[in-house]
Amino acid sequence: MVDAGAAIRNADMAMQFLSDNAAPVHPAVWQAMHAADPPDVPYDGDALTGRLDAAFSELFGRDCEVLWVSTGTAANCIALATMVPPHGAAVCHREAHIQTSEGCAPGFFTRGARLILAEGEGGKLSPATIAETIDPIRRDVHGVRPQAISITQATEAGRVYSPAEVAALGEYARAEGLRLHMDGARFANAVAHLGCAPGAISCDAGVDALSFGFVKNGGFGAEAVVFFDRALAEHARIIHKAAGQLQSKGRYLAAQWLAMLADGLWLENARAANRAAALIAQGAGDRLLQPVEGNQVFLRLTAVERERLRAAGFGFYDWGEGGRFVTAWDSDPADCEALARAIASL
Amino acid sequence: MVDAGAAIRNADMAMQFLSDNAAPVHPAVWQAMHAADPPDVPYDGDALTGRLDAAFSELFGRDCEVLWVSTGTAANCIALATMVPPHGAAVCHREAHIQTSEGCAPGFFTRGARLILAEGEGGKLSPATIAETIDPIRRDVHGVRPQAISITQATEAGRVYSPAEVAALGEYARAEGLRLHMDGARFANAVAHLGCAPGAISCDAGVDALSFGFVKNGGFGAEAVVFFDRALAEHARIIHKAAGQLQSKGRYLAAQWLAMLADGLWLENARAANRAAALIAQGAGDRLLQPVEGNQVFLRLTAVERERLRAAGFGFYDWGEGGRFVTAWDSDPADCEALARAIASL
Amino acid sequence: MVDAGAAIRNADMAMQFLSDNAAPVHPAVWQAMHAADPPDVPYDGDALTGRLDAAFSELFGRDCEVLWVSTGTAANCIALATMVPPHGAAVCHREAHIQTSEGCAPGFFTRGARLILAEGEGGKLSPATIAETIDPIRRDVHGVRPQAISITQATEAGRVYSPAEVAALGEYARAEGLRLHMDGARFANAVAHLGCAPGAISCDAGVDALSFGFVKNGGFGAEAVVFFDRALAEHARIIHKAAGQLQSKGRYLAAQWLAMLADGLWLENARAANRAAALIAQGAGDRLLQPVEGNQVFLRLTAVERERLRAAGFGFYDWGEGGRFVTAWDSDPADCEALARAIASL
Amino acid sequence: MVDAGAAIRNADMAMQFLSDNAAPVHPAVWQAMHAADPPDVPYDGDALTGRLDAAFSELFGRDCEVLWVSTGTAANCIALATMVPPHGAAVCHREAHIQTSEGCAPGFFTRGARLILAEGEGGKLSPATIAETIDPIRRDVHGVRPQAISITQATEAGRVYSPAEVAALGEYARAEGLRLHMDGARFANAVAHLGCAPGAISCDAGVDALSFGFVKNGGFGAEAVVFFDRALAEHARIIHKAAGQLQSKGRYLAAQWLAMLADGLWLENARAANRAAALIAQGAGDRLLQPVEGNQVFLRLTAVERERLRAAGFGFYDWGEGGRFVTAWDSDPADCEALARAIASL
Repeated sequence: MVDAGAAIRNADMAMQFLSDNAAPVHPAVWQAMHAADPPDVPYDGDALTGRLDAAFSELFGRDCEVLWVSTGTAANCIALATMVPPHGAAVCHREAHIQTSEGCAPGFFTRGARLILAEGEGGKLSPATIAETIDPIRRDVHGVRPQAISITQATEAGRVYSPAEVAALGEYARAEGLRLHMDGARFANAVAHLGCAPGAISCDAGVDALSFGFVKNGGFGAEAVVFFDRALAEHARIIHKAAGQLQSKGRYLAAQWLAMLADGLWLENARAANRAAALIAQGAGDRLLQPVEGNQVFLRLTAVERERLRAAGFGFYDWGEGGRFVTAWDSDPADCEALARAIASL
Repeated sequence: MVDAGAAIRNADMAMQFLSDNAAPVHPAVWQAMHAADPPDVPYDGDALTGRLDAAFSELFGRDCEVLWVSTGTAANCIALATMVPPHGAAVCHREAHIQTSEGCAPGFFTRGARLILAEGEGGKLSPATIAETIDPIRRDVHGVRPQAISITQATEAGRVYSPAEVAALGEYARAEGLRLHMDGARFANAVAHLGCAPGAISCDAGVDALSFGFVKNGGFGAEAVVFFDRALAEHARIIHKAAGQLQSKGRYLAAQWLAMLADGLWLENARAANRAAALIAQGAGDRLLQPVEGNQVFLRLTAVERERLRAAGFGFYDWGEGGRFVTAWDSDPADCEALARAIASL
Repeated sequence: MVDAGAAIRNADMAMQFLSDNAAPVHPAVWQAMHAADPPDVPYDGDALTGRLDAAFSELFGRDCEVLWVSTGTAANCIALATMVPPHGAAVCHREAHIQTSEGCAPGFFTRGARLILAEGEGGKLSPATIAETIDPIRRDVHGVRPQAISITQATEAGRVYSPAEVAALGEYARAEGLRLHMDGARFANAVAHLGCAPGAISCDAGVDALSFGFVKNGGFGAEAVVFFDRALAEHARIIHKAAGQLQSKGRYLAAQWLAMLADGLWLENARAANRAAALIAQGAGDRLLQPVEGNQVFLRLTAVERERLRAAGFGFYDWGEGGRFVTAWDSDPADCEALARAIASL
Repeated sequence: MVDAGAAIRNADMAMQFLSDNAAPVHPAVWQAMHAADPPDVPYDGDALTGRLDAAFSELFGRDCEVLWVSTGTAANCIALATMVPPHGAAVCHREAHIQTSEGCAPGFFTRGARLILAEGEGGKLSPATIAETIDPIRRDVHGVRPQAISITQATEAGRVYSPAEVAALGEYARAEGLRLHMDGARFANAVAHLGCAPGAISCDAGVDALSFGFVKNGGFGAEAVVFFDRALAEHARIIHKAAGQLQSKGRYLAAQWLAMLADGLWLENARAANRAAALIAQGAGDRLLQPVEGNQVFLRLTAVERERLRAAGFGFYDWGEGGRFVTAWDSDPADCEALARAIASL
């Protein structure tokens, strides 16, 4: 097998902390894909795909139904489209990925629904901030009422909803007749941070559908949408096909997931990424713009300081008046420590 | 590397001639994917994706712009959506894949446009059959006029449009103010059959956008949409993102294509599949429902005969009152000859 | 009040048999509109609109819910959109108005659904012709299955479904899990022809929603969609608003309908139109392309014959190799007899 | 003719200041509708509709193209749909009617586009508030950039953009490559307030399309969309049909408009409404929440005060912590003075 560790070490240094989106595929995932070579029934009729529901149901301790998709955008928007009719809306945070970074996909998948933007510290929504936003909306055909809430775990600001926070949203959603979707592009990092069961911040807390991120965590082209309500899943399969997401060789996507779930690789990878972020944070002191609760570190840095870090070989994106540093499953602790020292010595 | 040949030999025999959709990934493609492990800019900003336009432009002898997508449905429907507004229509054959087998994707990607169904022997459209269908349509707002024609190469009946036939359609399309799209899920097989330059049945013949199939030909999750008109490509990029097709690790898709185009692997694989189909056809005699012009063999078979073939271990789908046998890049000639003998002895 | 009879007599003769779409507003309808001048709650909150459900429920002998809309296209497409999801389809006749003459409205209102075209003599569908068309469609996500059937009463060929024919379709629809919509642009003419109760060819025969035409029958800008299933009506109200059909002075539309239903004016007007068509048909002999069952007469006429009729002052549209003559509530019997004589003497 | 003045005097007093939406049809408009009774070519092919473009072009001193529609929602959303593709967006004020009160129509007509909400005192946008909102949006496929700005004249807070304010927005729009739409549900009231030429706050100031309100100003079911760019109008005609807005007896809508434009009735009616609002404002003192610049008066009123006014027979809607009083062309000055006195004596 390819030595992915070697691969990253050979890569352009400047890629390191740009995004977990850029990380290589994990060797165990490659191995599983190769093992899927023998032909099987096309689309989602293969034996590997057939094992996914059971594998995820075991992980979450609850019956669920799973679809593989090629991107997080597809995962989020398929989930939303099962919850929100074309004439409806979903509430999300003003900084939510579905609002800022998924182009027109939400309107495309829902065929016209609206995103209603609410506020909240650290990228987190709460029943109070949602109510403040949606309570004034007219309840007749002249207004557009939401049918769903979408939250991001971990948030776009790198923060993690606790089980109690999710449960409060779940309870609010049920009371208001709303569905609850979780964009879990970094769900694994959140679970690793909390040390809780995966279900504690999802199905047990009232989440109806979860976009379970895998690509940032060692996979390639294989995210999952997990439906804890099978009524939604049936609709999802239609949208899945409609959006050209039903791949003919689905066994290669299912294989990735099965490898990831086996022996807890998904959690191990997330823990590695979180540890790497913690190493960086050690040098940050009061530069930290947000508590580090996953694999993202947001730092207050002047333009000059950012320039100095980049000149020293560290790659990262600007984030407002600072910088965002993202670690991944393969981040080299030595690199992180070097970055921490460089920050401390600014 | 995994020996894909070994893989298929171990597979359930009954998979053999069901569909080229089920074939394994070619070893050279695996190799290229592994080599893409080093991190690079996410989405389509990586160096490998950056080389695609040039590689395809060289292949077609004409400037073109290329997007990778995960499925043929996405390829076809993104192309259509660049050509057809929500209030418009595309003409296709009554048996076209976009009509019969892509679910509601055409209406989804175009956000409401219509497919207008025309006739034609062997799954082929001609200017005459198109005109017969669209000439009666009202030319005011009360009618829905087409803006594009979509043809399949090779067709759903396994037939291949000659360069002259495509050129006639291209000329008709220009005269009528219509765009021309080619669903080339088996474009490689058509080129292999004709022995012509790829451009002779596409850009040189008036095709504006080509869905260039790769998954059936040895890849995985990586089809291409080739735009010979860059104005369409710009629009395509938006729809590409809208449909959740813009993968974050695009380099793994680009790598597959570059491996496929290098040294003509795409053509070599298609030739192998076509040769395999020809071997099957040898035993078919007057059972052939269509001339074999690619990698599909359609045979007249009674229910009892189909049962006997299956009992002998041959896998295939029913096709009306007969059966469809599809070969792939990895079809074992010995299997094909065994099948030919079995058919001849029915 | 204006004398509408005088109005039409003064009009350009050439308008006479072009379309019932062009007829004037009936004096009783004008009167009712004037009487609606006193301000009332905007949109559909006024007292007149509030009386519509009861008025229609009495007419049909069944509880129903009614929305006024400005056009037949809106009526048909709102009804369809309540029955057919964006990923679905409706079956209609190849010559149905929604297919040939409502532009892209069906795809617009349904946000992407498909029309599946079936055949049938005289513009009529039957369970057999529908089954022939939809039975071959795949029943998985790769195919687009219908959720509704839409029939036109009277048909585009001027034919009328009998109560038994509608009931057979209603039974088939229920058995197949399909909804049944009736485009009743000339529903009044059909009832007048059959001499049956309105419910006998609608709700009692399994119709779920009826586009009840009024504009061709003496109104202006006020069609009705009648829902015999209130679950559909709730959805309809949202689409009604979405399409900009919820007028602020709804009382002027409701007033028209109440005037039309009072004392059976709707039926009286339709009978007058049907009688006028019968007068024309008297001179037609074997020129009749279709039996005359309402207010449309389709005649076999050569181009020269059409020219001679027009030279004699008769206005009508070409219809294939013949002509279509449409009468309305205000057609002058003397004009019809003159036309009959002119035809007989060709 | 009916005496509309008598009609309103007989109406329930409580309707008076609820909304200009509820006012009766003006006698001159009724007269013109009656005169349109003689049959003419259906849809928009009649002679009266044929005169609209010229009539509006004369009014605006600029070549324009006009469509009648049945509602302001249809007018606004057709205009937006010509400017904004399904993957795009329009910027509007957080309190804009298209955002708060037109249901899901914007997403419906545009087939998925987004409204981007900006701020501004008195319901008014400015280049600065728009820039603040849209400048941070990503300029690649991951962000949704606007293609149009929509402003309301007079605004939802009853305020009027001056010619210079509109021109500044027009200049900004051109510089940013954006179209400019004006929701002129109360355009007539704005012109009456400013005493300017209609073009000075529309086409001459960079407005590309104007929803010209008529229903609130004495018409019924007949709003206009005025396109100062014919390229937009062509697209508009398709959407017009798609949304079921192309009425078959268009002559009755055109007749209303021609009556309204003749002799400046539209301006006379608006002036009457504005004068009525000014009468109310006389008693308001420092209760005025907004300067009165048209026919809307927003007052600070406690719940008890609102109750007292209603007990005295005055009808109006709550508006946040106050009340909104709307006058119309037919408001009785005596009623307005009575209201002013009642307010003053609270």
